[in-house]
Amino acid sequence: MNSFNVRKLLAERVSLMASSEIRELLKITEGRKVISLAGGLPDPQTFPKDELKGIISKILQEKGDKALQYSPTKGIGELRGELINFLNSRGVTVGDEDDIIVTTGSQQALHIIALTLINPNDYVVMELPSYLGAINAFRLSAPNFIGIPLDDDGMNVSLLEVRLRRLYGEGKKVKLVYTIPIAHNPAGVTMSLDRRKYLIELADRYDFLIVEDDPYSSFTYEPSDTTSLKNLDRSNRVVYISTLSKILSPGLRIGWIVAHNELVNVFERCKQSLDLHTSTFAQYVSSEAIKTGIVKSVIEKARAIYKRKKDVMLEALEKYAVPGCWWSKPVGGLFVMLRLPREDLNTSSMLFRAIDAGVAYVPGNSFYIDGSGVNTMRLNFSFPKEDEIAEGVKILSSVIKSYLNA
Amino acid sequence: MNSFNVRKLLAERVSLMASSEIRELLKITEGRKVISLAGGLPDPQTFPKDELKGIISKILQEKGDKALQYSPTKGIGELRGELINFLNSRGVTVGDEDDIIVTTGSQQALHIIALTLINPNDYVVMELPSYLGAINAFRLSAPNFIGIPLDDDGMNVSLLEVRLRRLYGEGKKVKLVYTIPIAHNPAGVTMSLDRRKYLIELADRYDFLIVEDDPYSSFTYEPSDTTSLKNLDRSNRVVYISTLSKILSPGLRIGWIVAHNELVNVFERCKQSLDLHTSTFAQYVSSEAIKTGIVKSVIEKARAIYKRKKDVMLEALEKYAVPGCWWSKPVGGLFVMLRLPREDLNTSSMLFRAIDAGVAYVPGNSFYIDGSGVNTMRLNFSFPKEDEIAEGVKILSSVIKSYLNA
Repeated sequence: MNSFNVRKLLAERVSLMASSEIRELLKITEGRKVISLAGGLPDPQTFPKDELKGIISKILQEKGDKALQYSPTKGIGELRGELINFLNSRGVTVGDEDDIIVTTGSQQALHIIALTLINPNDYVVMELPSYLGAINAFRLSAPNFIGIPLDDDGMNVSLLEVRLRRLYGEGKKVKLVYTIPIAHNPAGVTMSLDRRKYLIELADRYDFLIVEDDPYSSFTYEPSDTTSLKNLDRSNRVVYISTLSKILSPGLRIGWIVAHNELVNVFERCKQSLDLHTSTFAQYVSSEAIKTGIVKSVIEKARAIYKRKKDVMLEALEKYAVPGCWWSKPVGGLFVMLRLPREDLNTSSMLFRAIDAGVAYVPGNSFYIDGSGVNTMRLNFSFPKEDEIAEGVKILSSVIKSYLNA
Repeated sequence: MNSFNVRKLLAERVSLMASSEIRELLKITEGRKVISLAGGLPDPQTFPKDELKGIISKILQEKGDKALQYSPTKGIGELRGELINFLNSRGVTVGDEDDIIVTTGSQQALHIIALTLINPNDYVVMELPSYLGAINAFRLSAPNFIGIPLDDDGMNVSLLEVRLRRLYGEGKKVKLVYTIPIAHNPAGVTMSLDRRKYLIELADRYDFLIVEDDPYSSFTYEPSDTTSLKNLDRSNRVVYISTLSKILSPGLRIGWIVAHNELVNVFERCKQSLDLHTSTFAQYVSSEAIKTGIVKSVIEKARAIYKRKKDVMLEALEKYAVPGCWWSKPVGGLFVMLRLPREDLNTSSMLFRAIDAGVAYVPGNSFYIDGSGVNTMRLNFSFPKEDEIAEGVKILSSVIKSYLNA
């Protein structure tokens, strides 16, 4: 820049935006022969390319003038209607079309929630660990994060109650609790039904909102109760968000929020300034894909693929086990968490070594709002091929071994 | 809501979000026989439906796995490359792909600029009138707006200098100036080349950024110099934004920002939290549409259609002229501004009457950050059919006449 300093011009809130160190580091994998267990991408085998070709031709033929035009900020009526049908089939009941707004991926849902509901210094509860995209989106509103650990039954709700009581004793109030109750990313656990009910009770008692993020409930690998918090809620405290990214295509960027219509109206006002509306074309495609059963068959196909890949990863972890390491046995979702034996071990510093040896992962620290998790990592099994998963875990094992001995 | 109050939960910044009174009012036109001169929609005749069907089949066939997948936050390389070619053909020189980021419509470009560059109370210069979407996006960062009037040669840059000098005398500093130099929305004027050069000089002298919004430079109806501020800029002070909405399809939501790569990197960090990335699929479609010349032919077709429609509107305004009313003779773009004879006349209060009579417009007040323009309105000629334009203006004339006599 010739004559002036860019940094001087930036708004103060830029310092709240996620730095991209890890992403920069992972960029060096591009063009190298590295097996990436770092992403969260769906397997392209699940993309219904031929089916989409058919419905897109039909859309352009029959409704091209509408599908290529501006459209309402809340989303087109057709898609909101189809989403309600789809959610019903998932066991999530939606009042009517006024209770749902289409977003540009569920990332935008998180951003809208951050802008409309979180004031600086508001208390916001996040799970330990939690979804990185939510942490980053909420951080922009500079809240006070409170971390509540997970165990095999999901968020430790009793501990949450202890924290709530203490805060209330100090005259403080929690604004919202963010949770991924079913098939958690990255932890791979599902909150027990009892805890789900208890959380709803606490929300009523301590007067907070619950943001229920549900990207993975189509991918549970063991029979389990997946009743949504939304359906347990009797006082409209649950803001439910989800996405078609894993069950149709992330490249279409279709997410949505279900909430009380008064909140949805505020979300609409906000979204108006963010991008006017989500791609009309992608909305028509998604609407047809739900209506014609394409989404249903993607889910069935993908669930089988991911269950098999999950088994391949767990078998490899068993086979190449490093003494003292712990890893999750996910009941759903796309990820395994792995923890190194000691807390002084740092998966961020080990990453460069791993990439050099031919495998990449996401250091777990980024998923913990309290700075913990430095000796954990997240491994993805949905995108890599089965032989890559086995090979990647094998390489990872030897990297860990040499790191432990260094 | 059963047990709690939604308003109590909202973040304070919700009060900065545009209220939707006018949009609500315009919603009552739905399902009624009302000629709408209120929107800013392209004519669907210009949508290249058959051509898109062809390129979409090819994309799904040849690159479906990539086109349906997650993609980089900055935008796919193919599209950034094609946008650079396209901008070159428009006379806007872009250094390289690191200087450009794809956004979800140019509305998201404005939101990103608001989040990354504007602090509360920063001085931000807007034209009087200016684009409503920019006003709404920037307002979210709570700046101090400074309004500079337009005349037939665009922004009154001498007046800007007077204001700058006064502010600097008070130890204050302008952060950025937002302008639509070519074929202004809603004013229909183009900033003279001399003023464009002068504005660049002032930016260097008083150390501010210029946000150059350029959605309409493909639609000028008289031969004129359309050299961009970006090309006149020697010190990387210009942040250039544009869109494919009017020259391919608004339903794809493809916009972009060209700026110095250090700024683009900050925009990327910001966009990461907003929606991860813009629809990959829409990006592949857009990239092919530029490469194969579809965008070029849409521009030629649309320019001819809009020029004719503009003439139809001006002829109707002449034919049904109301004594004392003034209206713009747009040199480009999609809009005519109309002003009622007296400043105590209010086009917002007249709107209900107009809709009742069968015609809708946007009250001009919303385009003025200083609260003026209450007796103005914006009329769109790109979307309505030619006979609707003539009929709409005829109805409007009689509404104005009866309003003046009331």
